Amino acid sequence: MSVSVSLEQIVSLAKRRGFVFQSSDIYGGLNGCWDYGPLGVELMNNVKEAWWRAMTYRDDIEGIDASILMHPRVWEASGHVGSFADPMIDNKTSKKRYRADLLIEDEITRLQKKGKDEDAVTLQGKLEKAAAPEDYYQIIVDNGIKDPVGGTDDWTEVRQFNLMFKTFIGPIEDSSAVVYLRPETAQGIFVNFNNVYQSSRQKVPFGIAQIGKAFRNEINTRNFLFRTREFEQMEMQWFVKPGDDEKWYEYWLEERQNWFGEYGISSEKLRVKPHPYDKLAHYAKAAMDVEYEFPFGWGEVEGIHNRTDFDLAQHAEFSNKKMEYFDQAENIRYVPYVIETSIGASRSTMMFLIDAYDEDKVGGEKRNVLRFHPKLAPYKVAIFPLIKKEGMPEFAQKLHKELQKNYKSFYDESGAIGRRYRRQDEAGTPFCVTVDGDTIEDGTVTVRDRDTTEQLRITAEGLGAWLAERV
Amino acid sequence: MSVSVSLEQIVSLAKRRGFVFQSSDIYGGLNGCWDYGPLGVELMNNVKEAWWRAMTYRDDIEGIDASILMHPRVWEASGHVGSFADPMIDNKTSKKRYRADLLIEDEITRLQKKGKDEDAVTLQGKLEKAAAPEDYYQIIVDNGIKDPVGGTDDWTEVRQFNLMFKTFIGPIEDSSAVVYLRPETAQGIFVNFNNVYQSSRQKVPFGIAQIGKAFRNEINTRNFLFRTREFEQMEMQWFVKPGDDEKWYEYWLEERQNWFGEYGISSEKLRVKPHPYDKLAHYAKAAMDVEYEFPFGWGEVEGIHNRTDFDLAQHAEFSNKKMEYFDQAENIRYVPYVIETSIGASRSTMMFLIDAYDEDKVGGEKRNVLRFHPKLAPYKVAIFPLIKKEGMPEFAQKLHKELQKNYKSFYDESGAIGRRYRRQDEAGTPFCVTVDGDTIEDGTVTVRDRDTTEQLRITAEGLGAWLAERV
Repeated sequence: MSVSVSLEQIVSLAKRRGFVFQSSDIYGGLNGCWDYGPLGVELMNNVKEAWWRAMTYRDDIEGIDASILMHPRVWEASGHVGSFADPMIDNKTSKKRYRADLLIEDEITRLQKKGKDEDAVTLQGKLEKAAAPEDYYQIIVDNGIKDPVGGTDDWTEVRQFNLMFKTFIGPIEDSSAVVYLRPETAQGIFVNFNNVYQSSRQKVPFGIAQIGKAFRNEINTRNFLFRTREFEQMEMQWFVKPGDDEKWYEYWLEERQNWFGEYGISSEKLRVKPHPYDKLAHYAKAAMDVEYEFPFGWGEVEGIHNRTDFDLAQHAEFSNKKMEYFDQAENIRYVPYVIETSIGASRSTMMFLIDAYDEDKVGGEKRNVLRFHPKLAPYKVAIFPLIKKEGMPEFAQKLHKELQKNYKSFYDESGAIGRRYRRQDEAGTPFCVTVDGDTIEDGTVTVRDRDTTEQLRITAEGLGAWLAERV
Repeated sequence: MSVSVSLEQIVSLAKRRGFVFQSSDIYGGLNGCWDYGPLGVELMNNVKEAWWRAMTYRDDIEGIDASILMHPRVWEASGHVGSFADPMIDNKTSKKRYRADLLIEDEITRLQKKGKDEDAVTLQGKLEKAAAPEDYYQIIVDNGIKDPVGGTDDWTEVRQFNLMFKTFIGPIEDSSAVVYLRPETAQGIFVNFNNVYQSSRQKVPFGIAQIGKAFRNEINTRNFLFRTREFEQMEMQWFVKPGDDEKWYEYWLEERQNWFGEYGISSEKLRVKPHPYDKLAHYAKAAMDVEYEFPFGWGEVEGIHNRTDFDLAQHAEFSNKKMEYFDQAENIRYVPYVIETSIGASRSTMMFLIDAYDEDKVGGEKRNVLRFHPKLAPYKVAIFPLIKKEGMPEFAQKLHKELQKNYKSFYDESGAIGRRYRRQDEAGTPFCVTVDGDTIEDGTVTVRDRDTTEQLRITAEGLGAWLAERV
């Protein structure tokens, strides 16, 4: 459905129309952070609500909202303090710091551009085998990779750099006061397993869902909302009896793919790809990525993971509390396995924005249109009086105020009707309603469909019910 | 409407029924942070949605969602780096740190308990005049105030302790990399003034609204969700022509009070109180607190402030960007004045929980009931088959699944019907629907009202529409 669009076009549209601004824009921005403007906050809220309804408007999933600051032991148990790190290398001359793996990737690209395909393949092979900091260092030295800024090769060793933001809680800044901004929302669910299971009286299999912010001190932020330092996740952990995990993994893999289809994502731009076995996270038995084809290439939007009993067992060990489920029917106790579905709210908002983008011609004139699913569109309807007299503005205003009780409705009486349509097309408003001379006489209005531009005549009185069926 | 309830009762109910848990509970909690459980997240989401609709489902207010991490210059401009601090004093023997003003307040309470009312009044007078760290120090020394823990009086000087959490962005931990977790959401609105005004084409007067988390490294967290380190705010900044500010201040003061009434807060537990002139924040020309009578006394839930042009002017100076509005009709440029309405989402969620709490007797038996406004109630409806046979569970399940498409609906078939009612009363579910033998024959169901316990017979088919009018 959508045309090919560059990331620059999306960033520019996003700023101009008020979807997304640079954070702290007037101060030159803060790298890796973004602010959602008037249209963007509605779009993202609708994405979040669509997910929340799909997840928690059912009997077997409970929602929670855990805090961003958590007890530091949480991140020792989860493995983040020990191993949530990127390999970093410093250049002594330029004083620049690089992610070692990305430095090597850049070198591969350079070799390809120079036509040295064989060398590129060899280097790629080495990179794929690298695991420890020393491996990266050796590759950089062996291949004579130079600082892209300073051009020198006087490198320090490669060191692991932890991606968690840390801060100090309480009045004294020492190591005993260190807490982290959570790098993922999942742990907020695991540590609440007992509380939720006991207060909700759920029986396995059941899930816990959460939407919330997470933070990673990424060195290379890039691609707009794709890799940022502050972002929002929508995660669901599904607790099952060990042995049932593979069946449920398949179930959630299918459920989650359907969700994208329901909200109109072009199927040819979506694919599911297994994580290579050797790149699986330490906790995972199996993992699949749902990828979308962004302007910069395929990128992960959601991951479906079989986390086994790793997290609950770790928290049981570190907290010295039981993290078990008691199955009354079978009279057995066990630590449940976990199937996780983890989708980026910020990332998927960008996906919906890009996928909705289209250009076509209406009456010989080019237009930009955002073909959002009506449930995701920031404004549901716009009301226009055809001209600014003969009672049309009054009628239109009254209709608008009535609709506004339940929907985001936009009122516009300024400029040519064609221009007003164009503005709404570019904001993704699915329906525009025009009040004209006939309206005053017979109470009917024209409803124009954003996608087809077809017009329909219905009664103003019936408009609310008509909209309710569609948005 | 509500009975007197202690904070302990609320905290206990909140945990038992899944409204609010201690953060990182299995690790002994993290002071000043709380997690919202299955019922709590729905309650808070409904409070936020009620506010968001009141604020942004109108033509003259735009919503945004700015990032928590902002450029550090923002907090220099706003004055937070310089003056958002508490006076702290250390005891050299016990190594304990105290907020100097609270230490003096505790001494006043002690004097009152000893019947030394005159001394207490004198000390209170001195405390009210104190402003600089030296003032607090002098009072503590002059009055021989001792460490409540160690009993000694070997105090350090009083120092200002900044309440902002700080962290480091990027790979290098030095002073140039310091960023703060925002201590208020308001600045995210001010720095976006130009972006929002240009992309939305709003005309003054107009507002920008935002819901989001903020963080303060409070030394004395207390009273459950009242004073926490991580909390959520709902703020709206209303931009007006200088000179119109006092009129709009009155307007918003009234609007905001009405909002509490609409959602059923007992009027006798709500009061509006002007901030004493000498305690006004540095930016404020006038300020009013909306206070609720919590179990621990009156506490601020919302503030309405006339912030003048302080913030926009500061950001203009610090960013070297114009922060002005151009009035086309009058052909003048000015820096708008700002009226702010600032309400705590976490605090007001606690207020709604406490205000809803009631105890009464039904059929001679005591019950706990949460009398939430139906729009705020976590579950809107619960469906019960009277007995587990004769087609009742099947009918009830079908009805439940149908309602669940649009509402949080709860299905329960276990235990005596009276017990099922009690559980829903305590969760605040406004309507319970029972499917019985007659239902199978004539398609009618019983709807029981949570507050009156009165029962009504309506058709199952008409239940959706009946609910839609009420929730």
